[in-house]
Amino acid sequence: MAMRFQEELTSLQNPRVKQVVRWRNRPDRDDSQVVLAEGYRALVRALAGGYPLKEIFVCPECFPPEKHHEEELLAQWAARGARLIRVAPLPFEKMCYRDRPEGLLGVGPQLHRGLEALKPAKNPFYLVAEQIEKPGNLGTIMRSSDAVGVDGLILCDSRTDLFNPNVVRASTGNLFTLPVAEATTRETIPWLKKKGVKILATSPHADPLYTQVDLTAPVAVAVGAEQYGLTKSWIEQADLVVRLPMMGEADSLNVSTATSILLYEVLRQRLDAGLLQDPGKVPDSADC
Amino acid sequence: MAMRFQEELTSLQNPRVKQVVRWRNRPDRDDSQVVLAEGYRALVRALAGGYPLKEIFVCPECFPPEKHHEEELLAQWAARGARLIRVAPLPFEKMCYRDRPEGLLGVGPQLHRGLEALKPAKNPFYLVAEQIEKPGNLGTIMRSSDAVGVDGLILCDSRTDLFNPNVVRASTGNLFTLPVAEATTRETIPWLKKKGVKILATSPHADPLYTQVDLTAPVAVAVGAEQYGLTKSWIEQADLVVRLPMMGEADSLNVSTATSILLYEVLRQRLDAGLLQDPGKVPDSADC
Repeated sequence: MAMRFQEELTSLQNPRVKQVVRWRNRPDRDDSQVVLAEGYRALVRALAGGYPLKEIFVCPECFPPEKHHEEELLAQWAARGARLIRVAPLPFEKMCYRDRPEGLLGVGPQLHRGLEALKPAKNPFYLVAEQIEKPGNLGTIMRSSDAVGVDGLILCDSRTDLFNPNVVRASTGNLFTLPVAEATTRETIPWLKKKGVKILATSPHADPLYTQVDLTAPVAVAVGAEQYGLTKSWIEQADLVVRLPMMGEADSLNVSTATSILLYEVLRQRLDAGLLQDPGKVPDSADC
Repeated sequence: MAMRFQEELTSLQNPRVKQVVRWRNRPDRDDSQVVLAEGYRALVRALAGGYPLKEIFVCPECFPPEKHHEEELLAQWAARGARLIRVAPLPFEKMCYRDRPEGLLGVGPQLHRGLEALKPAKNPFYLVAEQIEKPGNLGTIMRSSDAVGVDGLILCDSRTDLFNPNVVRASTGNLFTLPVAEATTRETIPWLKKKGVKILATSPHADPLYTQVDLTAPVAVAVGAEQYGLTKSWIEQADLVVRLPMMGEADSLNVSTATSILLYEVLRQRLDAGLLQDPGKVPDSADC
């Protein structure tokens, strides 16, 4: 299958090349309201999540030797109406944020959504992440949120740019598949209460362990900033305050680690109760 | 309490200052066989873990405004025989790896230990981490290993410098408290088998979920490199091969996240079975 490109960029001086390079900086990115989706996996996820990427920059010389299916993927994006633009290796490497570019770089709009955008869920399972500061943590939280199938990731009073390239990278593209809402703590707590969703908070001062409370009913796991944890409002308004056991010298876990442990406990309880179905193993023949 | 210093460094040109700066590079660090312990928490952990730091560089002007107990900590280190060296703010900032130095920087020997250094355990709980590449992941794995109280972290065929400043940082100093052994896969598998320790590996092709197998008996959780997972030897020699449920688009989790979920499942089962005692909540009055 031959790829058809609408445009070709060969020079480092090309204004489109320079523009993409500038988008690495937040002010330029926000000014243009764009997000960059770099690499094969991000474009696969964005396609699966229906994220409206508008342009895909392609450098076939940079495709990695492992068997990916770049041409099929690009044909699908073209069918969705994305413009495919061929870029020579030198300018392409300049445009990419990563050290080893994979020959694919998508550009799409920043989608900012509020609580009202979250679809109604039968037995809601939300994650609330308040004031997370590090892009790597936020991205890892997104990756785990997708893995457990949350009905929504609610970012409260966010301190990270949701469209930071390190968020996209650490999320392994799940930024483009997840239902993400941005909201304030002040609007989120009453929104959850009104829906009858129990708020689960963690504190080292809590009595019950996180494995000792029922998490099969509608629940929102709430986690807070790296250094100081959840703000007072969340602890005070929580329906369940639980503790992660700490057996050693450490007094806390990395925030994305703690979040993932809590999310997988909700999943464990719901799978055990037969409320969810385990998708089962990946067939041996599948390449993953 | 007044702090007593054996030495004072005021100039950026001081050879000791320049030496510490050079130790940020691995060849220089390895050449001198040193590890740097930066910040209050790392020095507290190193003290708790009995790690033999030899010198502590101190810049009181850089102490953060929050209430730490720097003077008591330094008195304890002095009682252990560590040399306390006062450093002026400018050279101290140059010596530090972090952006916001906390006024404390310890130097100690690199301790390389093998399997024989791990103390016998009653109901062994090991973590084997094979070929981990990213210092941040290795450090986060250490932090979680300490939190669940493993009897040993075994680094097989390591691809990361154990004493990399980013390992120390992400471990929040637990590098200094954990029983860490470095070994090859070839020596570790028979060592575990001989002790009757079951090897737990994960694979997306496995049938049982990680929550569906008994993890209360002697167990070694084995995890592999970021991109390709465990090598064949581990999968083939494993007593238990399990799967983490993946409910979304993602086909895997971050390695330190997956590791922590597995470790906390072992802990959950052992606490539920009464084989371990939950240390309980932190009293409300404690500052943490």
